Amino acid sequence: MANETRKALQDKGLSIRRQVLGDKYVDAAIQNTTDFNRPMQELVNEFCWGAVWGRDGLTRKERSMINLAMLTALGRLHEVETHVRGALNNGVTPAQISEVLLQTAIYCGVPAAIDSFRAAGKVLAEHGK
Amino acid sequence: MANETRKALQDKGLSIRRQVLGDKYVDAAIQNTTDFNRPMQELVNEFCWGAVWGRDGLTRKERSMINLAMLTALGRLHEVETHVRGALNNGVTPAQISEVLLQTAIYCGVPAAIDSFRAAGKVLAEHGK
Amino acid sequence: MANETRKALQDKGLSIRRQVLGDKYVDAAIQNTTDFNRPMQELVNEFCWGAVWGRDGLTRKERSMINLAMLTALGRLHEVETHVRGALNNGVTPAQISEVLLQTAIYCGVPAAIDSFRAAGKVLAEHGK
Amino acid sequence: MANETRKALQDKGLSIRRQVLGDKYVDAAIQNTTDFNRPMQELVNEFCWGAVWGRDGLTRKERSMINLAMLTALGRLHEVETHVRGALNNGVTPAQISEVLLQTAIYCGVPAAIDSFRAAGKVLAEHGK
Amino acid sequence: MANETRKALQDKGLSIRRQVLGDKYVDAAIQNTTDFNRPMQELVNEFCWGAVWGRDGLTRKERSMINLAMLTALGRLHEVETHVRGALNNGVTPAQISEVLLQTAIYCGVPAAIDSFRAAGKVLAEHGK
Amino acid sequence: MANETRKALQDKGLSIRRQVLGDKYVDAAIQNTTDFNRPMQELVNEFCWGAVWGRDGLTRKERSMINLAMLTALGRLHEVETHVRGALNNGVTPAQISEVLLQTAIYCGVPAAIDSFRAAGKVLAEHGK
Repeated sequence: MANETRKALQDKGLSIRRQVLGDKYVDAAIQNTTDFNRPMQELVNEFCWGAVWGRDGLTRKERSMINLAMLTALGRLHEVETHVRGALNNGVTPAQISEVLLQTAIYCGVPAAIDSFRAAGKVLAEHGK
Repeated sequence: MANETRKALQDKGLSIRRQVLGDKYVDAAIQNTTDFNRPMQELVNEFCWGAVWGRDGLTRKERSMINLAMLTALGRLHEVETHVRGALNNGVTPAQISEVLLQTAIYCGVPAAIDSFRAAGKVLAEHGK
Repeated sequence: MANETRKALQDKGLSIRRQVLGDKYVDAAIQNTTDFNRPMQELVNEFCWGAVWGRDGLTRKERSMINLAMLTALGRLHEVETHVRGALNNGVTPAQISEVLLQTAIYCGVPAAIDSFRAAGKVLAEHGK
Repeated sequence: MANETRKALQDKGLSIRRQVLGDKYVDAAIQNTTDFNRPMQELVNEFCWGAVWGRDGLTRKERSMINLAMLTALGRLHEVETHVRGALNNGVTPAQISEVLLQTAIYCGVPAAIDSFRAAGKVLAEHGK
Repeated sequence: MANETRKALQDKGLSIRRQVLGDKYVDAAIQNTTDFNRPMQELVNEFCWGAVWGRDGLTRKERSMINLAMLTALGRLHEVETHVRGALNNGVTPAQISEVLLQTAIYCGVPAAIDSFRAAGKVLAEHGK
Repeated sequence: MANETRKALQDKGLSIRRQVLGDKYVDAAIQNTTDFNRPMQELVNEFCWGAVWGRDGLTRKERSMINLAMLTALGRLHEVETHVRGALNNGVTPAQISEVLLQTAIYCGVPAAIDSFRAAGKVLAEHGK
């Protein structure tokens, strides 16, 4: 791992990102790449998807569940939507997503959970669930 | 469930709280109960431990993992320590706790993860792990 | 109170919620209930509106004022709008809402207050105030 | 008001600050003034205590209650302690402080409320309440 | 400075605000002034733009850079857009804005940075950059 | 850059970290490395110090200033202390640190600034400034 190049790590990250978020989403992100945001795209592939999602130690389903919880706490609703899609791809059921968000109501407060239920409900409706 | 009384729900919650956090911790909390904080103690038993932790749909191990992620995002370090203890009781291994916190570095930022690694490391040291 | 059933507490909460937020708002929320968000709807009625708003000890006007302050701090603008409506129903005047939000500028920062002034101004305009 | 000088506003603010937080607290803050933090001390007197606390439109009791709610949401526990003292001076009863903090459990989450109950309980104990 | 009147400080602040954010933006804000938000408009001119932006000690370029970082941390995206415009007026280059936001990914987390890159990219596109 | 190995990036990061935070601080961090926190230590060296602090585009002084602003917004006081030390090493003067923190009072709220002034004042006193 220590001898892996940054390019190899980015490629590995991009591949995991495609598996979790889907080609359609990732292709759109890539098409929106500009000189301005390119360093961020590369950092996300390398750091987020390669160096962390690429690790063993938790299942992807577990990673999706903790992401939904964190993103709700942080109030980052755009990413909540993205990671509801990822959670479904990783095998988290709608009932489990509901259960995670219900737990956020206790720890992050009711308004945080309401916002995420609304965002997640929209994504589930698009997926016909 | 709808016909359960509030008292029954509080009792059920208190029992789950004891299983997750341990008698020693819960006895200390009960001993610190005053007129001032009694309504909060009751609310915690009833809603947090009874109405949410008492639900099926996620394993306790999963609930512990999403709690560590949320509490890190929220920066509530006292509760991070409490729920590291709970996570160990629920069968989350130190390696899995490390993995959850590493993922918080990406989503909540490095300072959030550093704070939780410090808090969790202290608890693990106390448990001889 | 300890012998109150969960169903009775939910019914009481729903009734207070209607008084504070208005039938139109609550009917819309109920109509949007799905299997996915039903547990959250029930938790909100039981926990938020029944167990806390149902308590004596603060006036509803005071509860509305502290809600506007908290929701501004949390940056939950959808709920700021909802609770500006609730505050008007509970007798908080537009001048008092302005005063609460001005105080948030000092404690939560100017951007938080600007966001809530914008959200509140929109609701006041809808109410012709 | 528009013709008030900044010095006059600072003096007015300092006077209100003494009334709310007590001479002992304010004298300690003044004694800790250095070249490094002097601009902050002046800003606090002028804007926080002069320009906002000095306004009519809310009672001091109401300002104290919304402060406790906001500071809990923000997780600023040092200031929670300070403003529990201020709230007592402004006539908020311990039972009302408990009621405000209980409401924060719903909107800011249980860990936020637990932290503030702990901080407030400490101050109440010091005051023999 | 101590003998400056509040009116003079507001006027000075309004003038700096025009230089940083542009007449078009400030004229729109003034045109939206109502009885409800007037105290906030005045506080912003006096406190934010007069008493702080009006100080020596940091360059405007430095103030713009730290604002972008703080606003990203706080998740206040409306103000991120406003202060990307201000940053460009103050001579921060798009490459430097990108660099500041990249650093927020590490300290505030990836979702915070993604949100701000999206908001900033929109403003840069409007400015043809 | 793309062909740089992860090990090389970690080494580069560790070297920058030593320059900014000082050998004493970094040696202590290394000495506290355990199996539990080792992945975090490596992530911090590789991504925070190597991949971001290692970039051109902002001066180290600018990076220190935006860090102080962000860490104040996030309420991560342990890291505020660390990065006040780093800021001094990077040539930010105490007067400039004061100026940055004064600006956080406007955007993050007065309690955030007060907390950081206290933390920074402690570090400055240790450095005899």
